[in-house]
Amino acid sequence: MNQRNKLKIINDPIYGFITIPSALIFDLIEHPYFQRLRRITQMGLSHLVYPGANHTRFHHALGCLHLMKKSIDILKSKGVDITEEEEESVQIAILLHDIGHGPFSHALEHSIVSDISHEYLSLEFMNKLNSEFDGQLTLAIDIFRGNHHKKFLCQLISSQLDIDRLDYLKRDSFYTGVAEGNINSERLINMLNVVDDELVVEEKGIYSIEKFLVARRLMYWQVYLHKTSLCAEQILIRLLRRAKFVFEISQVKIENSTLNFFLRNKIDSENFDDSTLELFSKLDDYDIISAVKVWQYHDDFVLSKLSQMILNRDLLKVKLKNEPVDPKKLEEYLKKASKHFNISESDAEFFVFEGSTSNLAYQPDKEHINIWYKNGKIKDVSSASDQLNLKALSKAVVKYYICHPKSNN
Amino acid sequence: MNQRNKLKIINDPIYGFITIPSALIFDLIEHPYFQRLRRITQMGLSHLVYPGANHTRFHHALGCLHLMKKSIDILKSKGVDITEEEEESVQIAILLHDIGHGPFSHALEHSIVSDISHEYLSLEFMNKLNSEFDGQLTLAIDIFRGNHHKKFLCQLISSQLDIDRLDYLKRDSFYTGVAEGNINSERLINMLNVVDDELVVEEKGIYSIEKFLVARRLMYWQVYLHKTSLCAEQILIRLLRRAKFVFEISQVKIENSTLNFFLRNKIDSENFDDSTLELFSKLDDYDIISAVKVWQYHDDFVLSKLSQMILNRDLLKVKLKNEPVDPKKLEEYLKKASKHFNISESDAEFFVFEGSTSNLAYQPDKEHINIWYKNGKIKDVSSASDQLNLKALSKAVVKYYICHPKSNN
Amino acid sequence: MNQRNKLKIINDPIYGFITIPSALIFDLIEHPYFQRLRRITQMGLSHLVYPGANHTRFHHALGCLHLMKKSIDILKSKGVDITEEEEESVQIAILLHDIGHGPFSHALEHSIVSDISHEYLSLEFMNKLNSEFDGQLTLAIDIFRGNHHKKFLCQLISSQLDIDRLDYLKRDSFYTGVAEGNINSERLINMLNVVDDELVVEEKGIYSIEKFLVARRLMYWQVYLHKTSLCAEQILIRLLRRAKFVFEISQVKIENSTLNFFLRNKIDSENFDDSTLELFSKLDDYDIISAVKVWQYHDDFVLSKLSQMILNRDLLKVKLKNEPVDPKKLEEYLKKASKHFNISESDAEFFVFEGSTSNLAYQPDKEHINIWYKNGKIKDVSSASDQLNLKALSKAVVKYYICHPKSNN
Amino acid sequence: MNQRNKLKIINDPIYGFITIPSALIFDLIEHPYFQRLRRITQMGLSHLVYPGANHTRFHHALGCLHLMKKSIDILKSKGVDITEEEEESVQIAILLHDIGHGPFSHALEHSIVSDISHEYLSLEFMNKLNSEFDGQLTLAIDIFRGNHHKKFLCQLISSQLDIDRLDYLKRDSFYTGVAEGNINSERLINMLNVVDDELVVEEKGIYSIEKFLVARRLMYWQVYLHKTSLCAEQILIRLLRRAKFVFEISQVKIENSTLNFFLRNKIDSENFDDSTLELFSKLDDYDIISAVKVWQYHDDFVLSKLSQMILNRDLLKVKLKNEPVDPKKLEEYLKKASKHFNISESDAEFFVFEGSTSNLAYQPDKEHINIWYKNGKIKDVSSASDQLNLKALSKAVVKYYICHPKSNN
Repeated sequence: MNQRNKLKIINDPIYGFITIPSALIFDLIEHPYFQRLRRITQMGLSHLVYPGANHTRFHHALGCLHLMKKSIDILKSKGVDITEEEEESVQIAILLHDIGHGPFSHALEHSIVSDISHEYLSLEFMNKLNSEFDGQLTLAIDIFRGNHHKKFLCQLISSQLDIDRLDYLKRDSFYTGVAEGNINSERLINMLNVVDDELVVEEKGIYSIEKFLVARRLMYWQVYLHKTSLCAEQILIRLLRRAKFVFEISQVKIENSTLNFFLRNKIDSENFDDSTLELFSKLDDYDIISAVKVWQYHDDFVLSKLSQMILNRDLLKVKLKNEPVDPKKLEEYLKKASKHFNISESDAEFFVFEGSTSNLAYQPDKEHINIWYKNGKIKDVSSASDQLNLKALSKAVVKYYICHPKSNN
Repeated sequence: MNQRNKLKIINDPIYGFITIPSALIFDLIEHPYFQRLRRITQMGLSHLVYPGANHTRFHHALGCLHLMKKSIDILKSKGVDITEEEEESVQIAILLHDIGHGPFSHALEHSIVSDISHEYLSLEFMNKLNSEFDGQLTLAIDIFRGNHHKKFLCQLISSQLDIDRLDYLKRDSFYTGVAEGNINSERLINMLNVVDDELVVEEKGIYSIEKFLVARRLMYWQVYLHKTSLCAEQILIRLLRRAKFVFEISQVKIENSTLNFFLRNKIDSENFDDSTLELFSKLDDYDIISAVKVWQYHDDFVLSKLSQMILNRDLLKVKLKNEPVDPKKLEEYLKKASKHFNISESDAEFFVFEGSTSNLAYQPDKEHINIWYKNGKIKDVSSASDQLNLKALSKAVVKYYICHPKSNN
Repeated sequence: MNQRNKLKIINDPIYGFITIPSALIFDLIEHPYFQRLRRITQMGLSHLVYPGANHTRFHHALGCLHLMKKSIDILKSKGVDITEEEEESVQIAILLHDIGHGPFSHALEHSIVSDISHEYLSLEFMNKLNSEFDGQLTLAIDIFRGNHHKKFLCQLISSQLDIDRLDYLKRDSFYTGVAEGNINSERLINMLNVVDDELVVEEKGIYSIEKFLVARRLMYWQVYLHKTSLCAEQILIRLLRRAKFVFEISQVKIENSTLNFFLRNKIDSENFDDSTLELFSKLDDYDIISAVKVWQYHDDFVLSKLSQMILNRDLLKVKLKNEPVDPKKLEEYLKKASKHFNISESDAEFFVFEGSTSNLAYQPDKEHINIWYKNGKIKDVSSASDQLNLKALSKAVVKYYICHPKSNN
Repeated sequence: MNQRNKLKIINDPIYGFITIPSALIFDLIEHPYFQRLRRITQMGLSHLVYPGANHTRFHHALGCLHLMKKSIDILKSKGVDITEEEEESVQIAILLHDIGHGPFSHALEHSIVSDISHEYLSLEFMNKLNSEFDGQLTLAIDIFRGNHHKKFLCQLISSQLDIDRLDYLKRDSFYTGVAEGNINSERLINMLNVVDDELVVEEKGIYSIEKFLVARRLMYWQVYLHKTSLCAEQILIRLLRRAKFVFEISQVKIENSTLNFFLRNKIDSENFDDSTLELFSKLDDYDIISAVKVWQYHDDFVLSKLSQMILNRDLLKVKLKNEPVDPKKLEEYLKKASKHFNISESDAEFFVFEGSTSNLAYQPDKEHINIWYKNGKIKDVSSASDQLNLKALSKAVVKYYICHPKSNN
């Protein structure tokens, strides 16, 4: 295939067209590691609440690529020095930033593997690809790891105003139909600039930043932490935990050999080697859901019941409150569930449980969002102006949930 | 014309279609008083900054009619008791709520008439129409004046979450292209309910309300109080003031007899009678702009220069700051302008001036936005939850501007 | 659960909100038969070309429900007599019209079952649900089968301007990002009326109909029959055929017992009974894809190679032409592939094949689209006016394709 | 002002942001000739039917600038040779292509001036600007006149697929809310290429071209030639004709001296000199509408009645038919109107008249739209493929209208 054929254009409902900017990036997209992302949804089980939310990590990664190109163009037009190699590398870094995600990633990060973050796994994939591609990813990896001296390139990959967020908030808002979560990524990118190798936002962008943070919080409470999604996710976690337990006892092999490997073995960063990476690269949402489809008929009541709940969207009842759950209430529900399902109280814990979730729209202790004033000063956005309510956005909010069977009132 | 022909559908770029719900409303729209609103722009001189912002008060009024219909449908579906007469009347009230606006209304409220609000004038127009339409507007007027016992109907017309705002924020955001100002009117309306005859917002709507208030503030600072629009508006005010002054001295009649009447006479609520209303109903943006077009050639330097500034969008330089303007700076600019234009210092004040502008996203002392909790409690939104930053939105922000000729540095 | 809780609102990126109109419809949506549609994509493998196209039949069915409600409201407002029972039934009929779709339905209609249309299967599901719901679906089934005396209700379910098309064209255009395929469903619905119990389009809608038919054709050639999707679909068909062949010989059971049943047995309308329906109701896209994931490692070269092609989107080369493929060319490619892969020529036929596809924007021999003129006359749209080019749209277009391995030039 | 300040960004509701690409273009936009376009609406009186259609020629010209930049970028990325000077010049040419439009241009082309096209006037303006800007517009003028040897640059300015059409169809569809008229300008531009210095459309764009032509025709019949707009326009023409007649007799000067000049003198290309251009550059919609506002009280019945019709949108009754109007019918209406208004029959001709209008979606005798096939052949789109219905789009359609007073049945 000649070089020209690799300069493809891909339709995107959000940005119109996404252009693949180089042959190397084209080849990375074609790689089975990246194609796998077609089978991992961006929002896990959120489609149970927002039926439009079936978009994939594959699509999100392409969206990031597009916004990164825009950002680089804007910065260059403002006189920021970016070499051609840096331009390609920062695009590769954002394209691959999520390549380490496993199936239902956030939910299953502690079932499939133990204490291995998807960032760690992304790096593993990038290193593997780097050797396949003769070291052409070295600079991209440096940028991804935050080691490049032009810090703003690293900040475009990971910070509180990184390209990842600019795409996923817009994309998730679009596909869920929660229009209030929509952010104006194009305008935010237009406001970017670089001072002393650090990313800054020009003064006139201050209201857009506030709007972005408010939209982000709205998306958290209305979508990402929606009580029904949260409940479904917790059920899935317990379902996998139960499956591990059941198969340990029974010694019966489960059908899918790859999934079998990850359920049977405790994989952590110590024993995660090349062959584990290869196996991990075969896993996706389809392995989980098709296992769940088999398990709905399993002899183990807990496993089959939890499986049916996910498949038929016949979930637990869930309440979300500002105060912690009263332990007596929990105890009471446990007893009822145990009786209702005729199971032990410890098994009932798979159907009755509580927990907490929290969200912080802006983290002042992390990588700041810096505002660049016309007079040359730079300030953290949360202290930028007393007229703004960004301080309030820097306060964590905790909510508490309790789940129990519907018939279990 | 038969009744059926009056049930027209009007295309709207925002809502798709607007349906005219009754023959009486059709006839009100056909009336010259209402047709006049086709010639009054919604956003005055904002099109000098946002070239798409040429929409009219006519279109805004139709948009309000549409949203009111939706609101009434939602409330009725939730079991709120609204009679057919009330339904038509609240629609008439919102349709006519802005009918009293004069040309460049906010800017010229004190040039064309003295201390008469557009609300007062809207009421005058409604009373006049009420006699023409044999008293069919009586209930609409009651609602408009806030006198109807079902207070929520009055609140739909005027409150901090009234239909007026739900349409104008959406419409102005749409036509200016300032996408971050977009609000989800449909969702907000879906959250409305009525408790004890008062309008409330259901609990799940709390983030949408916050988003609405943040969008509103963004629109204020980015659009309504944009320094260039603000400057153009101030120039127009001074231009009219100068015209009054020039024509008082010269005794030469200006060409447009209606405009002549309002420039020559001080009209206030005392002497505003039926014949004044009739004259006022003839005024629109075209009278002002065509006068300005004539005045660009006037012998009076100040009048002609200000006129050219508006027509050629060759405005003054303007700065917007958080601190009041230093009087010395002002004095300095005045001297320079006086010298530059070879005019007296008092004439120079038409080109060099300062002032302040302020904005308050939420006014806790006014008609509250009330949140209705699932437990039955009702709270003002600003105290609804400490996790929200609405308190900050209840603090007025003042900004100070100074304008002076461009060459006048 | 009380009735009120069943009047849910669902977010939709296209229509904003979809309201579930009745408790019966709510219960049908909750049924596992309907929930299964969450796991069947609307567009099969089109997401390999248009990465946004991951929407499901579940979502499409809800969209249809929404448009049906709008249509009924419009017709009622025009004085068409529709009883409450008819209103609910026609909504049920459209909600369930696609419930019989299997995984990758059009592609696999002849692999999973033999000569059983999805319409037949939809009817089977409806009959089953009708007994579960004590006969409440009887009228809906009558309408679905075209047996109701108010023919326009049947035409809303199935005709050349049915609600199905109004939703899927809009939805597929939206999710693929092929903006030219967008149709104005709302306007088309506004133009509907009923004369002598038949659905007609009012005269002023004639250009919108033309636009609809042109958009439909564009979607066919640009999306539904896109050469890459078409190729992927043909690969999937051959893959299943090969799987049947392999498992017949080997007598080894495949892992998924439900899929196993349908691959091992020839199911046609003769032997399709209640237990088959139950098994069929368990099948979805996940069964196919997870089987393909296992088969990528199968010892059979053809099966594993075809599986890898689908999973890694490493498809065959495909050409689409206006003329039939030259048999000599096909023979040549077969020989090359046989040599290249070191397989028999009959096995090479799984990688080298040709076929044809055709499309007809308007079928004048089917259920007409009728235009209702102001003078009372009714004409078929294709003869409505010589100024329109609808005659051309009534001519079938055939295209011919050939697929062969990439390295096989 | 330094160069950097001239690189402004302008908000556009359609494209998001429009960037002004050079200091020269910035200065041209700032020129009073160009600023005048802010006061000339793009669609004349169409806002009487579509209340959103208040956009101006100023905004359209900026939109064209934006699309031209995109087109040049695409062509350059495909290897087409375009120098920097050509890039700026073709952008200037499209920016100024409509600068010669007078108020209500198409309607009043024969009232304000005689047989002078707006293209001629645009050229006059450009020549004047060229001397002001020291010859920097010479190449732009060459391109505008079709004289540049790289013919594709001229075709981007004027042809059946020029940038003008790509913006105005999209913009007019957007502001009227007639969503079916929307075209995918971005995709069409992506399909452009150059062969032998001529603009061509790549083969895969053939359906998009068809869609574009169908959308264009729909916009003609549904919007541009909407019977009510058409009627309003005809009233305005007759109103100006009557004004000329009245002021010739009365010898009373009308108030607006510029308008007075054009109404009193017959200006044609013979006597159109620099001073006429200067006067013409002062005219805009405001002169016409404010004169009409004065004339609504004029003693001449015909003049005042026609003026009131426009201002109060109380127009004539209009019918649009496929056959010519029967002269007897016209005669009959004339008699009735004469009697009804108590005026002479020749005066009644101002209220009772007929005419015809026609539209041709594609003109095969004009500058072709050429399709470039992968095999290297180039064909005119109308003969591109027998499967397309473009032949039908090449047939002119004529419609006939008759207008008469409403009460005149």
